[in-house]
Amino acid sequence: MANFDLMRELARDEGGKIVLLVLDGLGGLPMGDYTQTTLEYANTPNMDRLAAEGTQGLSHPIARGITPGSGPAHLALFGYDPIARPVGRGILSALGIGFDLHYGDVAARGNFCTVDENGLITDRRAGRISTELALPLVEKLNNIQVDGIQTFVRSEKEYRFMLALRGEGLDGAIEDTDPQITGESPLPVKAATQGSERTADLLRAWVEKAQLALRGEYPANSFILRGFAQDPKLPKFDELYKLKAACVAVYPMYKGVSKLVGMDVLETGGDFTPEQEFQVVAGHWNDYDFFFVHIKPTDSRGEDGNFEAKAAVIEQVDRALPTLLGLNPDVLVITGDHSTPARLRNHSWHPVPTLIWAPATHLPDLTDHFGERQGQRGGLGQFPANELMPLAMAHALRLEKYGA
Amino acid sequence: MANFDLMRELARDEGGKIVLLVLDGLGGLPMGDYTQTTLEYANTPNMDRLAAEGTQGLSHPIARGITPGSGPAHLALFGYDPIARPVGRGILSALGIGFDLHYGDVAARGNFCTVDENGLITDRRAGRISTELALPLVEKLNNIQVDGIQTFVRSEKEYRFMLALRGEGLDGAIEDTDPQITGESPLPVKAATQGSERTADLLRAWVEKAQLALRGEYPANSFILRGFAQDPKLPKFDELYKLKAACVAVYPMYKGVSKLVGMDVLETGGDFTPEQEFQVVAGHWNDYDFFFVHIKPTDSRGEDGNFEAKAAVIEQVDRALPTLLGLNPDVLVITGDHSTPARLRNHSWHPVPTLIWAPATHLPDLTDHFGERQGQRGGLGQFPANELMPLAMAHALRLEKYGA
Repeated sequence: MANFDLMRELARDEGGKIVLLVLDGLGGLPMGDYTQTTLEYANTPNMDRLAAEGTQGLSHPIARGITPGSGPAHLALFGYDPIARPVGRGILSALGIGFDLHYGDVAARGNFCTVDENGLITDRRAGRISTELALPLVEKLNNIQVDGIQTFVRSEKEYRFMLALRGEGLDGAIEDTDPQITGESPLPVKAATQGSERTADLLRAWVEKAQLALRGEYPANSFILRGFAQDPKLPKFDELYKLKAACVAVYPMYKGVSKLVGMDVLETGGDFTPEQEFQVVAGHWNDYDFFFVHIKPTDSRGEDGNFEAKAAVIEQVDRALPTLLGLNPDVLVITGDHSTPARLRNHSWHPVPTLIWAPATHLPDLTDHFGERQGQRGGLGQFPANELMPLAMAHALRLEKYGA
Repeated sequence: MANFDLMRELARDEGGKIVLLVLDGLGGLPMGDYTQTTLEYANTPNMDRLAAEGTQGLSHPIARGITPGSGPAHLALFGYDPIARPVGRGILSALGIGFDLHYGDVAARGNFCTVDENGLITDRRAGRISTELALPLVEKLNNIQVDGIQTFVRSEKEYRFMLALRGEGLDGAIEDTDPQITGESPLPVKAATQGSERTADLLRAWVEKAQLALRGEYPANSFILRGFAQDPKLPKFDELYKLKAACVAVYPMYKGVSKLVGMDVLETGGDFTPEQEFQVVAGHWNDYDFFFVHIKPTDSRGEDGNFEAKAAVIEQVDRALPTLLGLNPDVLVITGDHSTPARLRNHSWHPVPTLIWAPATHLPDLTDHFGERQGQRGGLGQFPANELMPLAMAHALRLEKYGA
């Protein structure tokens, strides 16, 4: 991990500009007749030139063998330790749907469920009801009023929703009401610490009204809550790295994680292409020291199992790269947050191709094509993703020497 | 880090002889028309033979991206963790100038500064006065007498000096008097813990006299102190590794760090060449199990920005290597404490070429030239510098098996 004390001690408030370009789910595997990975197969003359001039390697998002979700994977890329300082599921749910989380809000992940006449759970996912069927129920829950706090309920997907509480002095140390098995009732709301007793009382009042509101519905006639959490109070980029940082992303989740670490979120359209995202960077080039640029469709096409379509996204990014390079960044990092091999149609644990190009400070390695197998022989070796930020900072000459 | 408990449990008091040859600032970068690093460019037939026969890799002195000073970098090479067990700046200052530090001494780094008529700092470095101008002031401060302790003041360089206190029961937990900004007074001496109240009292008496002594001087009419520290009480080589260890170095700093870890410091002349240093090893070959040999000018020429001169030093070491090899060491490690690329004229964070040659136990890798890019593909991979000592011990068959 980026050692926080060390970063605070060594970070300078001047130095080069850094661009961290993240192609979500970049890493892959060969598939069927494709003997190369998607990245190896894609035609990427610009990335290959950067690989030849710079240095590449493989990063492990969390630890060997661990497949990360996008939240922890991005926190690691930003230099945090998602195991030691986890971000609660409720917060990730809120970020994932782009909910405008305020500092101090308590958020939880909810599941609609089915209970029998005795209140015992018969289906923890309410028959996996569709988002369409769930929406009116979400609306009912969202309209519940409890004295002393504001409450918000938003649909996540199908039977899943987010609950957020807003008010003075709330405490997220609340135990799950999800018993994890059928044949039992949803658990009563329980404070996990003394400090959260008041929050538990307020929540209890909400839960009572919410259970009433769902009476008579079917199959979603009850709900369970888990992953109560508040903003994890991660040190922010300006304080930790002395970087004025901006996020350019299309999906809400990535904007949310960026906000958690103190980045400004620049405006984008929901259908922006890589070229358009890079134009946003160009438009704010003089305002920031650090740009996090997030490309989503590499992951989506990987999850679709569409090898060719994922390669096409990588090629689209490659064609747009001259727009970024024309800005003369001092450090350009190209990586993914995790692998999403089309063959597995899912995130995976495979280490992620990572390229550092920093013409004033890099040591060119002996590779000349950006990809997994070249990365195995690259100059960066294999390393934990959360050591990438100190490396990028060093290459931008933004870290003082440690000790005499 | 070398796991101290494990080392104590497993180290045998017999086994092969180890030579740790450190070329200070060995790692480098290509520069201008030089497409190779200095080490790759240098003509090193002996090192290349050792690389072909042995195994090489790259070591990270502190952590990825962190540029170390020579003190922490050497502690890492000796198997310690310079972050978890840092050696205070005062101790490094004392070691750096070759001051004969006694166990229990409290040392601090001092800066001469300029204060205005209200005692507020106007320049934290007293106009960066020259060493020549500072020397008479250092002498004044050195002559101050305080009842109950001995005090020592020595010039470091320009406006910087070292202060050491010697006496019974001193405690180094004293806060900096450096407010870190101009426009404020030097801070009063303050004990950081209850145990250091007496030391703070004694120091306060010294500071009062010292402030008086500088009254009327200009621009160095005051001073600030920071990095109060005592010997960090690191476990010593004989206790930790069961090694009788000796240091052969020309510069005081490296002799000092070696003393901190319990090495005997062998006598050298201030202008000794690598060949002469190796002759010192030869002269004491039967007296020790472990020799740390330090070569300084690789770092100095790197800091000069002189690519060719740094290569010439490496070649000089290479030509002298037969003297070392003629002693038939069981393990010869050749490495640096950090990189000092001539292109950057400074220490850097780039990982350091490291070669282990141990004919009875090494696994030859597929490389045949000692250098950074070959190291990227070498048998040692990339590893933290403070894991080098256990590796060297193992290759000397000095570590027992762990567990049944």
